[in-house]
Amino acid sequence: MAPTALADIYPIPVRHYNKATIQASVLHGPRDLRLETRTISDPAPNELQIAVKATGVCGSDVSYYNKFRNGDLQASAPLSLGHESAGIVVALGDAVSGFQIGDRVALEVGVPCDNCRSCLRGRYNLCPKMRFRSSAKSVPHFQGTLQERINHPAKWCHKIPAHISLDSAALLEPLSVAIHATRRATIEQGDTVIVFGAGSVGMLVAAMTKLSGATTVLIADINARRVEYAIRNGFATKGYVIRPNKHHHDEPSQFHTAKDLASGIVDVACAGELDVEGADVTFDCTGKEICMQTGLYTTRPGGQLVMVGMGTPVQTLPMSASHLKEVDIIGIFRYANTYPIGIKILSSGVLPSLDDMVTHRFKGLGAAKEAFELAGKGVDADGNLVLKIVVES
Amino acid sequence: MAPTALADIYPIPVRHYNKATIQASVLHGPRDLRLETRTISDPAPNELQIAVKATGVCGSDVSYYNKFRNGDLQASAPLSLGHESAGIVVALGDAVSGFQIGDRVALEVGVPCDNCRSCLRGRYNLCPKMRFRSSAKSVPHFQGTLQERINHPAKWCHKIPAHISLDSAALLEPLSVAIHATRRATIEQGDTVIVFGAGSVGMLVAAMTKLSGATTVLIADINARRVEYAIRNGFATKGYVIRPNKHHHDEPSQFHTAKDLASGIVDVACAGELDVEGADVTFDCTGKEICMQTGLYTTRPGGQLVMVGMGTPVQTLPMSASHLKEVDIIGIFRYANTYPIGIKILSSGVLPSLDDMVTHRFKGLGAAKEAFELAGKGVDADGNLVLKIVVES
Amino acid sequence: MAPTALADIYPIPVRHYNKATIQASVLHGPRDLRLETRTISDPAPNELQIAVKATGVCGSDVSYYNKFRNGDLQASAPLSLGHESAGIVVALGDAVSGFQIGDRVALEVGVPCDNCRSCLRGRYNLCPKMRFRSSAKSVPHFQGTLQERINHPAKWCHKIPAHISLDSAALLEPLSVAIHATRRATIEQGDTVIVFGAGSVGMLVAAMTKLSGATTVLIADINARRVEYAIRNGFATKGYVIRPNKHHHDEPSQFHTAKDLASGIVDVACAGELDVEGADVTFDCTGKEICMQTGLYTTRPGGQLVMVGMGTPVQTLPMSASHLKEVDIIGIFRYANTYPIGIKILSSGVLPSLDDMVTHRFKGLGAAKEAFELAGKGVDADGNLVLKIVVES
Amino acid sequence: MAPTALADIYPIPVRHYNKATIQASVLHGPRDLRLETRTISDPAPNELQIAVKATGVCGSDVSYYNKFRNGDLQASAPLSLGHESAGIVVALGDAVSGFQIGDRVALEVGVPCDNCRSCLRGRYNLCPKMRFRSSAKSVPHFQGTLQERINHPAKWCHKIPAHISLDSAALLEPLSVAIHATRRATIEQGDTVIVFGAGSVGMLVAAMTKLSGATTVLIADINARRVEYAIRNGFATKGYVIRPNKHHHDEPSQFHTAKDLASGIVDVACAGELDVEGADVTFDCTGKEICMQTGLYTTRPGGQLVMVGMGTPVQTLPMSASHLKEVDIIGIFRYANTYPIGIKILSSGVLPSLDDMVTHRFKGLGAAKEAFELAGKGVDADGNLVLKIVVES
Repeated sequence: MAPTALADIYPIPVRHYNKATIQASVLHGPRDLRLETRTISDPAPNELQIAVKATGVCGSDVSYYNKFRNGDLQASAPLSLGHESAGIVVALGDAVSGFQIGDRVALEVGVPCDNCRSCLRGRYNLCPKMRFRSSAKSVPHFQGTLQERINHPAKWCHKIPAHISLDSAALLEPLSVAIHATRRATIEQGDTVIVFGAGSVGMLVAAMTKLSGATTVLIADINARRVEYAIRNGFATKGYVIRPNKHHHDEPSQFHTAKDLASGIVDVACAGELDVEGADVTFDCTGKEICMQTGLYTTRPGGQLVMVGMGTPVQTLPMSASHLKEVDIIGIFRYANTYPIGIKILSSGVLPSLDDMVTHRFKGLGAAKEAFELAGKGVDADGNLVLKIVVES
Repeated sequence: MAPTALADIYPIPVRHYNKATIQASVLHGPRDLRLETRTISDPAPNELQIAVKATGVCGSDVSYYNKFRNGDLQASAPLSLGHESAGIVVALGDAVSGFQIGDRVALEVGVPCDNCRSCLRGRYNLCPKMRFRSSAKSVPHFQGTLQERINHPAKWCHKIPAHISLDSAALLEPLSVAIHATRRATIEQGDTVIVFGAGSVGMLVAAMTKLSGATTVLIADINARRVEYAIRNGFATKGYVIRPNKHHHDEPSQFHTAKDLASGIVDVACAGELDVEGADVTFDCTGKEICMQTGLYTTRPGGQLVMVGMGTPVQTLPMSASHLKEVDIIGIFRYANTYPIGIKILSSGVLPSLDDMVTHRFKGLGAAKEAFELAGKGVDADGNLVLKIVVES
Repeated sequence: MAPTALADIYPIPVRHYNKATIQASVLHGPRDLRLETRTISDPAPNELQIAVKATGVCGSDVSYYNKFRNGDLQASAPLSLGHESAGIVVALGDAVSGFQIGDRVALEVGVPCDNCRSCLRGRYNLCPKMRFRSSAKSVPHFQGTLQERINHPAKWCHKIPAHISLDSAALLEPLSVAIHATRRATIEQGDTVIVFGAGSVGMLVAAMTKLSGATTVLIADINARRVEYAIRNGFATKGYVIRPNKHHHDEPSQFHTAKDLASGIVDVACAGELDVEGADVTFDCTGKEICMQTGLYTTRPGGQLVMVGMGTPVQTLPMSASHLKEVDIIGIFRYANTYPIGIKILSSGVLPSLDDMVTHRFKGLGAAKEAFELAGKGVDADGNLVLKIVVES
Repeated sequence: MAPTALADIYPIPVRHYNKATIQASVLHGPRDLRLETRTISDPAPNELQIAVKATGVCGSDVSYYNKFRNGDLQASAPLSLGHESAGIVVALGDAVSGFQIGDRVALEVGVPCDNCRSCLRGRYNLCPKMRFRSSAKSVPHFQGTLQERINHPAKWCHKIPAHISLDSAALLEPLSVAIHATRRATIEQGDTVIVFGAGSVGMLVAAMTKLSGATTVLIADINARRVEYAIRNGFATKGYVIRPNKHHHDEPSQFHTAKDLASGIVDVACAGELDVEGADVTFDCTGKEICMQTGLYTTRPGGQLVMVGMGTPVQTLPMSASHLKEVDIIGIFRYANTYPIGIKILSSGVLPSLDDMVTHRFKGLGAAKEAFELAGKGVDADGNLVLKIVVES
């Protein structure tokens, strides 16, 4: 996709770009999504004003849409959703340098405090004062990107080169999760990796482990079509379709299902290896307790089990497997210092196409409701796989 | 304790030292401990024959003694217990160099295969073929050190200098666990550390974190006397006595007790810190689920929770605390490459005295039964604290 | 030293503290140091105004004083020296929180950009836009702390508790170098460490390695009195006095002197070790080529040689020693994320006293010239060792 | 290449395979290479007897061939050369398991002691007692693989799958160097890497950094054809041909050439990057002082310069570049724990073909002299590039 000329965005004089009113998609309660007019101020000295052009739909957005809450976080005021985003610079704060109007940027939507221990040590994703767009954690809520324009600190806007589409730029957000997760793990050349979950994050995690030198990357999911998609498009080298019924037993002993499933997966993942001890690293991108249980069994002594998917907050786990094998459990929360890396990676063309991951595109903020309705489904009305949905504007 | 002259050990000519029969303390079933006569062969080419002089009593020994099993491991044949041991070289295999008769040695009682991936990479504690004395895992069982003499690979015997007592040398085994655990964790200068469990391993873990630069080391236990002991003897800088009843609530929400306990401990551990986020590293040396649960709450974002104590194989944990804070869970299984380090540390005198940790000494293999009976108790008949028991011979 | 009441600092009403004129010690050329009156503005919104109370004299200050340059950096305008500093808050910028007038603070005098790759990754010492007080690198020069008051970003002011003296707080700067150097190295429990240079940084590096678990810490210097001081005050466990003449040879082969010196030092450092392979880590705190050469020989296979002392920019080194032994050479430039750690360490009392390291104190900015004149000497007029000089005001 | 049936190797009965005499290529002095008959014993209990089928020619072999010495190592007795080797098992020691006659194996020709600190910690390449075939370091010399058959510890023989040719298996040795070098460095996803030297090790290092996630890999050499080869065959993504004359200056200041060269290379390597700071990691695979000097300038702050190529033992380096930028210098000596990784990588097909790297094959030990004569030349008589030469037997 060629870079959009500014005249294509707003066919009006520049001085009007930062007009005081914008359209915004705003959630007022469960499934109560409204298109509203909001006012917008000029960007602060360190901010850019961005015309949002593409916003990917994430599972947390769908959760807010359906329940007005996400996990423990209950929204307490109207909230614009969306945090996988890219757009075009339409106005510059007075103190900003290095940007100009018309620059295409990916938005890193979490704004940390810059002052705390975590920020100063480069782990700003752990900043206790982090304000993250479309999350109900900060009060007042930090509004998401399903708005016509937003003001955002220039520090957290990342210029993207001409040959990266705005849709791909928006997907730098889930790619960031994958970069962070695979960088926190210790992937070595020639490693065998198992990934639970063939959603967009799971696929990107798989692809990033391949990029990091893993030579066997097995992706497992209950959805055979997703597994096939991942293999066919080069995200993973092997697939495993989990059949829930297959692992049923009349008198299951504790963790019988997990052990049985682990055994089946390791047989495939490590086929041909001399000493089958399990995966070097297992990633759970599902948030399901059964996958974490299974992951403790699929991982080799001295390996790592990485918790990427958020889901079950309380889990009953066979911790002795971690204990006796020294399998470390690594927790992953969002990302830090990933956008510049993601841009280099997308530029270099070494990943499967992110544009191709976008199975459904909706045009205009008014179509957001339709997007959220579809996002909860595994297939669309025509029976096509739903993988990643983007709202373009 | 001055080094024992050989003549003090066996006041008979050298050629008789490796006589073919020895006394051995052998467990035949729950609490069925017998003193028996066994035969012993000459040491193999790579082995030393060691007259065992001191064996510390470990919790796993007590478990075997009482139940003829330890966790999942059921003994299936008579088993000599004991794996915290030191002794004196009385005979040398033909291919051994670097040792002579009379050398005082600490015994590293696990013998790995030397050939597998884990061995070659320096993590031989994870060797799947590891044979570990006094454990029922290998079949036939690899007999423990509560024997008059044993043959042991010279590679796993560590010479100790004259000023380290044989009792201290025996305690290099639990010290090894502490070295390994604190080395696998990332202790930084100035760190705040919390240790659950004021048994001998917990105390040594605490002391090793102090030695590694932690400036606040809080030790927590339900036994106030152990906590006091740890503080008074310089193992830890702060203590916290857990009062089980204090944390009772009429309508407890999930993990209410753990959260409440964590809050109380962190208040003490981090008193005076500007931004109280919790401990940099928490060690669980109890094996109790409640301590692991609490540890997830006591640890700061980006910190580590280290599982040292073996105990509850299945644990229900608030994993979201790990997830949202990126608290990594590090599993610890025994140790590797610790004995030479432990000897340097003991030699340098930077640790509290290990000899002082030995609260009870029993003379002769025949007293082993008495030792095991006492080991299950918190205090002896005179009301004295039972910390570490050594069987000397 | 008890915390100074504000009334003791300026016995005049608070509103006058940020009066517009201050006294400043300003260097105009080699040894041309003048006491001048400067104007000072109110602190910017994110700044504090600090009455500087203590400034340590560093080698780079002495270099500027004598040559108006330091290494490659030529001063091009009048420059106040001083960057090891502590003081008292006398005025607050509008946006500052967490501080109040009268707070005692240590000053971290380097102000990085907060936006670049190095800053975002927690290595802000490598920020290419770093402005560092008393250095001629940034133009206009960022003035040093030998001024009555300065405005400084609150982010880089660190509150110190009541029981830490302002002199010790000033010495958090060289302590920061030592923390950073020993944290970048991999110090393990029981390590053997060699430190070249028994100046204040060398002594603090030695002390920090002890604090991190090294059990043998040898400090080497040509000045026997400094070596003795380091041993007697607990900075190091062993000393070695380098005698330049001792290592002279009629027909020296290449690096003969370095090899000979290394051999002598290792003999002392590793005395009593079973397999003498050299130090686990060697630190050069002298900046001398001969010490780097020797350090490559004193370090064990797989160890590290850490370049702390800045000095000879071009060095001829026996790199094959690094190559064949995989001795890594670690470069150290200032520090990052060290002040909070340093404060915890000073608070905990685990280091030798920094106040005792201050051998000479000068009162008032007018005495700065006298301080710089003395700083170039090894002993004072009375023959006392000159270790650390502080200008108090 | 299909696996060779045993009958193709020795068309005689099995019991005769380990006949007592073999042919061997033996070097007696500079260019004095002779084909001789030697006796061979039965394999020891832990050994395999291997019919050597392929041996690659390495630079150190050529050095011995021409000078009877390599660097500081002077041969003191007749020496068979060759250490990049693969072959077929023809006899088994009594204690060997896991192998059978006919197995195709790659030979890891260094045999460490298994007992020292380095061995036990997984860095056996640093073992002071290492015996390495074809090197004159151990006395008596450990003979190289240019022999009809050798006995070698089974522990250091690695089975290779059917679809890996014996030539490729022999090249697991230089690949091991590349694996070790890139694993000791810290390669991150999206990194920019510079490699000096487009010989076989340089190319493999470049390929391994790509495999590890580097997205820009520039290879630099004075030989344009080698650079072209590396790019065309996918070892690197960019090339730079060093023109010695280009960087000549009438009045060169110190390191002018290195700075100038670095500037040119970084311009190419970092073209298109927002903030050009240099390569994340630079590898020197030439052993030339000028490349190490240049590498200190080409590497970004906080990056690494990795010394792979052995060559100039004494180097004059601009160490201030390391100092001020915290560029660490990482020394590389051979490899450890690389063969199983290399086999997984070759099996997975993610590397450019190693068979294609073999530009010249010589048949029979008698052709070894011809091989060594060619190996010193950049092109053969027909003007074809000489990259890797293998002696097949």
